[in-house]
Amino acid sequence: MAITFELKHTDAKTAARRAALTTPHGVIETPAFMPVGTNATVKAVLPESLDEVGAQIVLANTYHLFLRPGHEIVAEAGGLHQFMHWDKPILTDSGGFQVFSLGAINKITETGVTFRSHIDGSLNTLTPEKSIEVQNALGADIIMAFDECISYPMDKDGTAAATERTSRWLERCKDAHKRTDRQALFGIMQGGMYPDLRERSAADIVALDLPGYAIGGLSVGEPKALMYEILDGCTPLLPENKPRYLMGVGSPDAIFEAVERGIDMFDCVLPTREARHGSVMTSVGDVNIKNARYERDFGPLDPNCDCYTCRNYSRAYLRHLFKAGEILSHMLLSIHNLRFLLRLTEDIRSAIENDRFTEFKNEFLCYNNKERV
Amino acid sequence: MAITFELKHTDAKTAARRAALTTPHGVIETPAFMPVGTNATVKAVLPESLDEVGAQIVLANTYHLFLRPGHEIVAEAGGLHQFMHWDKPILTDSGGFQVFSLGAINKITETGVTFRSHIDGSLNTLTPEKSIEVQNALGADIIMAFDECISYPMDKDGTAAATERTSRWLERCKDAHKRTDRQALFGIMQGGMYPDLRERSAADIVALDLPGYAIGGLSVGEPKALMYEILDGCTPLLPENKPRYLMGVGSPDAIFEAVERGIDMFDCVLPTREARHGSVMTSVGDVNIKNARYERDFGPLDPNCDCYTCRNYSRAYLRHLFKAGEILSHMLLSIHNLRFLLRLTEDIRSAIENDRFTEFKNEFLCYNNKERV
Repeated sequence: MAITFELKHTDAKTAARRAALTTPHGVIETPAFMPVGTNATVKAVLPESLDEVGAQIVLANTYHLFLRPGHEIVAEAGGLHQFMHWDKPILTDSGGFQVFSLGAINKITETGVTFRSHIDGSLNTLTPEKSIEVQNALGADIIMAFDECISYPMDKDGTAAATERTSRWLERCKDAHKRTDRQALFGIMQGGMYPDLRERSAADIVALDLPGYAIGGLSVGEPKALMYEILDGCTPLLPENKPRYLMGVGSPDAIFEAVERGIDMFDCVLPTREARHGSVMTSVGDVNIKNARYERDFGPLDPNCDCYTCRNYSRAYLRHLFKAGEILSHMLLSIHNLRFLLRLTEDIRSAIENDRFTEFKNEFLCYNNKERV
Repeated sequence: MAITFELKHTDAKTAARRAALTTPHGVIETPAFMPVGTNATVKAVLPESLDEVGAQIVLANTYHLFLRPGHEIVAEAGGLHQFMHWDKPILTDSGGFQVFSLGAINKITETGVTFRSHIDGSLNTLTPEKSIEVQNALGADIIMAFDECISYPMDKDGTAAATERTSRWLERCKDAHKRTDRQALFGIMQGGMYPDLRERSAADIVALDLPGYAIGGLSVGEPKALMYEILDGCTPLLPENKPRYLMGVGSPDAIFEAVERGIDMFDCVLPTREARHGSVMTSVGDVNIKNARYERDFGPLDPNCDCYTCRNYSRAYLRHLFKAGEILSHMLLSIHNLRFLLRLTEDIRSAIENDRFTEFKNEFLCYNNKERV
C-alpha cells in the first residue's frame, strides 16, 4: 500500500475527524488544504515559501502536464517531485474535470474523451487508461480516477449515465494502475444532486476497496445549501477508515461545513487566484487591496497573521505594488492567502483534538463576518 | 557626510579600482552592480532573494514613486527602506532621465520639466528642487541630481545647452538638499558625445565638491566603441577619491570596459528585464529558455552557477514554466540573471585585489563568447 490512514480522533459532537495520511513523501495531517499547482507550480510562490506557509501537499493537473510539457518529459526529469523541486506529497487530478471545463470536447465515448487542447487547439484523447498512464509517469503520491464530469444543472438521466460510466471507468483505472506500491489511487463519487445516484456511485466505488475516496461534482455552481445537503448524504456512504477528499472546495465556510460532515481533504485555486486579483482573506474580514482606503494604511494585511507578508509589508505598500502591476504583489498576496487557509486548517485540527470544533467554527465565522475593514 | 569612500587598491595595469563605499545602511564593496527596483521592488524578486544573490544596494526611481504612490506616502511609511522591506543601501535616480524617456514632455524651461504622466496622462512638474524634495522624502542613501537628458544623436549646440543647464540645475539641487547627514547627493556629468563638453561639465560638477559623481548620457543608443571612447576621456576628469557611477550600464562586456577605465558603480534593468523575456546569461553563453533544444535538458541553467535557481531547477522545467506563462519563470530567471551579474562583480573585485583584472577580463569574455549552448 502506498499510503496509510490513521484516524486519531473524532469530534465529540460532529463527524469532524482528525487523522494522519502517510504517503511515500511524508505525512499529511488532516483535515488538510492542498494548494493547487496546476502547471507544476503554485502560481507565484516559491516551494520554500509554500513550505513556510504550512503546505503539506500540493495538487498538480494531469490535463495540463499531459498537454505541456508532456508526461514523458516529467518522467525523464525524475518525476514531478524532482521536476518542480517539491519533495513533500503531491496529488494529481486525473484530467477528468479539466477536459470538460477547459478543453473543447470533441467526442465522449465509452472509450474516453477526445478534446481540443486549450493551448494549441490540437486534438487529444484521454481515457481511463491514458490518465493513469500519465499519472504513473508523473509519480504523485495520490492519483485520481478519470471520471465523467457533468455540468450543473443536469437532468437525472444524464447524471445517471455519467455516474454509471464513471463507475465503469474506475474499474479500468484500477486495472491500469501500475504503481500501487508508490501511488494511491482514489475513486471519485459522482451522482450530481441526486441522493440515490450518489448512493449507487458510492456503492460502486467502495466495492473496489481503494486507498481513498473523493467526492466530485459539488461546488460546480449549485447553491451552497444544496451542496451541504448532498454532502450530508455522501460522507456516511464512504468508509470511515479511508481518507475523504472534497474536490475543488476551499472557501473557509465550506471547509467548516465539510469538515463537520467528515471530510479530510480539500483543494481550491481560490487563495492564489484571489491574490492575483488583489483579494485577501484576513481574520478581520476580506480586504480588496485596490481600495483607496488602504493608500495610507501602514499596518499589516492581517493583524493576527504570522505570514511572511504580514510580518514585513504594509497594506499601503501592497496596494502600491498591485496598482503598479508588480509581480511582487502576486507573490506576497498569494503567500498571505495560502497561509490564511492553511492556518485555518491547523486551527481546525487542534479544535477537533480538543473536542471544540463547533465552538471554533462559530467563533471563526462570527468574527470573520463581523466587520469588513 | 552621509557616505565615506575608501579606495583599497588600484589594479597594477589599468585604472580598475577596488573600494568600499560606506552609507548609513551599510557598506557597498565596489565595483558594484545595483539591481533596479523601479517601483520600490526589483521586479519578481523577494528582498531576501536579492540579499541571497549578493545585492548590496538597489536603485529606485523618483519619477515612478513621485507619480505613484507619491513620495509623501513613502515618507509616512517611514521611508523607502521600510516601505519596501530592504534595509541595505538604496540609491534613487532623480527622475531626470525618466521624464525624457517615459513622460510625454510638455514643456522644458529653466525652472524644470512639465510632463504628462505615463500612468494617467496627468500634468506634472519636476524641478531640481522638487526632485530633491521627493528624494529627501524617499530617504535613499544616495540621491541623484536632476539633469536635462538629451536624445542621441544630438547636435553640439543642443548638447551644450542641456549640459550647461544641467550644471545650473546641479547648484539648485545642492542648495535644495536638506538631509546631507543621511543622504549623499551625486552630481551627473553630461556633455553627450563631445569631449570638450564633457570636460566643461566635469569642471562644473567637480567644483561643487559632492560626495560622488555619475556619468550620464552614455549607453543611450550610441555604438559601444563610441561610448568607450567618450568614457576614456571622462573618468580622468573625476576626482579619484570619490565614487564614480556609470548610469544605465550593465552588460558584462560594458562593465569590464568601464571598470577598466575606473568606474565603481553600475545599474541596469538588463538582468531582470531579459529574465522576463526568457533570456539568460550563463558562463557557457546566452540561453534563450524558449528554445526547443532545452525541452529535455535536465541540467541547470548554468553548470558553474551557485544561485538558488541553478541549484534546484532544470532547464527543462524553466522552459516549461516560461512556455506556460508562469510567474515562477520570471522569479527564477531573474534570480539567476542577477546572481550572474553580481557574481561577475564579485569576481572583478577579487581580480583587482590580485592585480589580475585584465587576465580575468580576457578569460571571461573569451570563454563567455566561445560557445552558445
